[in-house]
Amino acid sequence: MVPHLITALTGPINELEARLLDSMPAIERWFRLEWMEHTPPFYTSVDLRNAGFKLAPVDTELFPHGFDHLTEEMLPLAVQAAMAAIEKICPEAKNLLLIPAACSSSFYLAHLQRLVQIFTLAGLNVRLGSLDPTLAAPRKLLLPDGTELALEPLVRRRRRLGLLNFDPCTVLLNDTLAGGAPPVLRGLYEQYLLPPLHAGWGVRRKSRHFQSYEEVAKKFAKLLGMDPWLITPMTGGHARVEAGDGHGFEALRASADALLGKLRRKHKEYGIADKPYVVLKADDGSGVGEGVVTLRDAADLAAPALHAQLFAGGAGAREMLVQEGVPTHERINDAVAEPVVCMIDRYVVGGYYRVHAGRRPDENLAAPGSAFVPLAFAECHHLPRRGAKPGASAPNRFYMYGVIARLAMLAAAYELEATDPDAESYE
Amino acid sequence: MVPHLITALTGPINELEARLLDSMPAIERWFRLEWMEHTPPFYTSVDLRNAGFKLAPVDTELFPHGFDHLTEEMLPLAVQAAMAAIEKICPEAKNLLLIPAACSSSFYLAHLQRLVQIFTLAGLNVRLGSLDPTLAAPRKLLLPDGTELALEPLVRRRRRLGLLNFDPCTVLLNDTLAGGAPPVLRGLYEQYLLPPLHAGWGVRRKSRHFQSYEEVAKKFAKLLGMDPWLITPMTGGHARVEAGDGHGFEALRASADALLGKLRRKHKEYGIADKPYVVLKADDGSGVGEGVVTLRDAADLAAPALHAQLFAGGAGAREMLVQEGVPTHERINDAVAEPVVCMIDRYVVGGYYRVHAGRRPDENLAAPGSAFVPLAFAECHHLPRRGAKPGASAPNRFYMYGVIARLAMLAAAYELEATDPDAESYE
Repeated sequence: MVPHLITALTGPINELEARLLDSMPAIERWFRLEWMEHTPPFYTSVDLRNAGFKLAPVDTELFPHGFDHLTEEMLPLAVQAAMAAIEKICPEAKNLLLIPAACSSSFYLAHLQRLVQIFTLAGLNVRLGSLDPTLAAPRKLLLPDGTELALEPLVRRRRRLGLLNFDPCTVLLNDTLAGGAPPVLRGLYEQYLLPPLHAGWGVRRKSRHFQSYEEVAKKFAKLLGMDPWLITPMTGGHARVEAGDGHGFEALRASADALLGKLRRKHKEYGIADKPYVVLKADDGSGVGEGVVTLRDAADLAAPALHAQLFAGGAGAREMLVQEGVPTHERINDAVAEPVVCMIDRYVVGGYYRVHAGRRPDENLAAPGSAFVPLAFAECHHLPRRGAKPGASAPNRFYMYGVIARLAMLAAAYELEATDPDAESYE
Repeated sequence: MVPHLITALTGPINELEARLLDSMPAIERWFRLEWMEHTPPFYTSVDLRNAGFKLAPVDTELFPHGFDHLTEEMLPLAVQAAMAAIEKICPEAKNLLLIPAACSSSFYLAHLQRLVQIFTLAGLNVRLGSLDPTLAAPRKLLLPDGTELALEPLVRRRRRLGLLNFDPCTVLLNDTLAGGAPPVLRGLYEQYLLPPLHAGWGVRRKSRHFQSYEEVAKKFAKLLGMDPWLITPMTGGHARVEAGDGHGFEALRASADALLGKLRRKHKEYGIADKPYVVLKADDGSGVGEGVVTLRDAADLAAPALHAQLFAGGAGAREMLVQEGVPTHERINDAVAEPVVCMIDRYVVGGYYRVHAGRRPDENLAAPGSAFVPLAFAECHHLPRRGAKPGASAPNRFYMYGVIARLAMLAAAYELEATDPDAESYE
């Protein structure tokens, strides 16, 4: 559950929020029953977009960043959730090996420090191991607050991974493994490797995730007797495109065109004045220039600037996905904002707003120049929101955000079950 | 774990605190392993006393009150712990029947409202049933904030307990059952009755609890290589005393005398200047006039005023326990204070100070005139403390409190296993 009566946001609520709040006991029970059948990812962050007329997840990260944006008040919740997760996975755990991403931004280092803090407070000895095979001796990471963390070379034995004089029961990955799983992480059958290797972006596909999300959202919408579109970004086709090869682009164009048609009908059905648009995303989670590409007309796919953007940096081929664009109508001061919900095990432990003053509501905010505002429990942000229906009672938007984020997390659980290579080998 | 880096108290720490903080991962692992073998009580509150030279639990309540003193910031932690507890006990739960104590003080009603809030936010339909057999129709309880709760007559069927049109999977008791378990609660084998009937004060004895606590504290002290006395109130004998009958009193006097001798040796061993004292407590948790009785000399047991106090109100016989008196050296402003730690399942969810301006450090504070101050996470109380050693680093007293409170909770788990009438029948 989400700590919703004491969270930040006030303002008018829309029908969806009222429905979710009214159905809270049924929703929480539904999640409990789902978690009896499906294992939640170890930790997750979900980017949401609140368009006023709908609320949908647009990205589900299984190697989350940004835990440094959780407020101090939220920390006990994260620690408690971490304790529950550890107890379930490996109650006798003493040592946790955390493998960070190869990122040295001060944001990332602050996040790393927060992860170390959470798992230390949960009662584990936490040390950091580097995936960099050239690292021969411990290296100091200087943190923004002036303290240090030590990044140590990994020591691989036949069946176990550790550090010098450090044999962990659990290895926690915070690298997205975009290039695939390195050999040093393979064949670790004696230790818990979390998340599993097939959660890495070398294997994951957004198209597969949103297929699971549609399944989850349909079940959930049936429980509540509502249209799943109100919580689902409609997903079109995906295709491999190559520079100068029109074939893949034609498939994307046809898909974008069909999707825009469906969206126009949906907007008409709900009386939504906004013109629908679609976005083009890298199916494998990689960046596309400054984020996703917004298309209001399928014909825009032929634009040379778009092609140049996709293949900038020398990429020979890209796997691209067409998806409904969900605008965000939340703002902090004058900057466009979108909520990011952080979870450990099945628990929402907090969230924050990603804010970008230089972006429009229909653009990606995960881009250089973005800033972060904690979604604190006991504070009041008073964010105005377009599209909210009048006449509703005192809100809690963060409960709604937590519900939708947990649906995306559940979809990731479905996705990881479906893509588990070990599970397939038993069939 | 306890949310300790962000809690209230700062000030010098003593050796015990430093030792607990240093050993945190070992301590948390030890608890995880204990909880694999032993089931925590559903919810618990523990009164602690910090004497500067020692920290010990003095009362462990399995039908806790005072959850209204938890701050709003602590509420998400309580809700998350409640979710974890429910998921473990009855994941398919829809309905929770809460049976409150027959107490209508505004403090208690605020506590009751908080319990309803916590379990509602955890995703349950919560309704209140009354143990009063004369209640024929729902009665409104007017809460301090102007809202209302409905207290309904219990409906007992052959094997199930509920309300009109309300069939719960779990029945949560908040009455201490001091008079024994009423028939309406007996023989409920199809529902979860929490805590179990033998956790009621009609069955429980403090002497039995502290016997378990000594066992737990010895194991824990061995883990840390320390003297268990530093965290244990030394417990003497217990006896049934009757008005005008010297026999029981002589047993208590001999016990108090022996205990005072032991304590004098301990105080000498540790160079503690304070003169030790013992307290006389009702073994069955019932009140003794204005709380426990403080004795500095065993001969004081013969004082007529004491006898008058014990048998005030017409009690014919009392079961009394002799225990080491642990003074509290914490103060809020000029009032003597003692911490109370609140737990749900195995998790510390918060705490508060019981404060009494009219009492001395060696007296019971759970008496008319006491006030309550939340132990908030993000605030700073700066309580001075005698007996703390200088030169220690930045503290977290609340972590230490959470550890000792969890030891008392674990002792209650041991106690309930040992006193379980159903377990005995299988032997």
